[in-house]
Amino acid sequence: MGSYSTSARLGVPSRIHHVAMVVQSIEASLGLYRDMLRLPLETVLDIPADRVRIAFLGVGESKVELVEPTDDTTGVARFLASKGEGFHHVCLEVADLAEELTRLAIDGVELIDSAPRRGAEGPVAFLHPRSCGGVLVELIEAPGGPSWAALKMAPRG
Amino acid sequence: MGSYSTSARLGVPSRIHHVAMVVQSIEASLGLYRDMLRLPLETVLDIPADRVRIAFLGVGESKVELVEPTDDTTGVARFLASKGEGFHHVCLEVADLAEELTRLAIDGVELIDSAPRRGAEGPVAFLHPRSCGGVLVELIEAPGGPSWAALKMAPRG
Repeated sequence: MGSYSTSARLGVPSRIHHVAMVVQSIEASLGLYRDMLRLPLETVLDIPADRVRIAFLGVGESKVELVEPTDDTTGVARFLASKGEGFHHVCLEVADLAEELTRLAIDGVELIDSAPRRGAEGPVAFLHPRSCGGVLVELIEAPGGPSWAALKMAPRG
Repeated sequence: MGSYSTSARLGVPSRIHHVAMVVQSIEASLGLYRDMLRLPLETVLDIPADRVRIAFLGVGESKVELVEPTDDTTGVARFLASKGEGFHHVCLEVADLAEELTRLAIDGVELIDSAPRRGAEGPVAFLHPRSCGGVLVELIEAPGGPSWAALKMAPRG
């Protein structure tokens, strides 16, 4: 329980975990986000399974995520081809992701992922933009939450 | 200087101040953001000068802003008519907005507002999406920064 914030324990999202932008090139986009806006670059990471490369830059308790498709077969690549660079999704941190998904489904929210799955930064699930006013919303479970163990994910130190 | 975070003092954006979504109806959208995602509603505010109504919901050190056009003459209303509901802009907090704008202009970033102006929550300026990978970026000055006094804005207690 030590890593839960008070608000997370009460079932209220505890922070914006990240805001994700689709970009043509992470390298080129760092010119804006790292060099001009001076957000500290934390990670650049290939995710071969998703055929994307991602970067995280820090801003307070949140991050900006840059997502660059590495081939043209994925949803993110089609997004880039059809809409161009821009906002992709916002990710909110919750205390108990499985419980949250159950509750949202009962409330009639359309889920892309009906159960937590392994994400780069923890257990995640996406909600459908049709249920979220056109916004793709991701939920991530706070470190120490029950889905970390269920998915055999080890919080990084 | 008391309200400056360490990072703000060093000229690094200190937090995501808010993420703004354009909505048809704040009342309807509270069904998702307040009732289903359980973000605490902080303010609902008419801004007649901008012909919008806005709501702020809290999440950690950040907010989600909902923006509802109140007539069909504004840029936000045209955005809603052409693209539908969805993400509108992300706002980063900086320590010294005028200095930041000067530096960004020198770096070649296209500014919508070349100087700080009065926003609902403090001195603000927008950067053009053409310079920001398709993302509309707003900057807001942290309470206690120099533009508050220059614009005769009083930080709220």
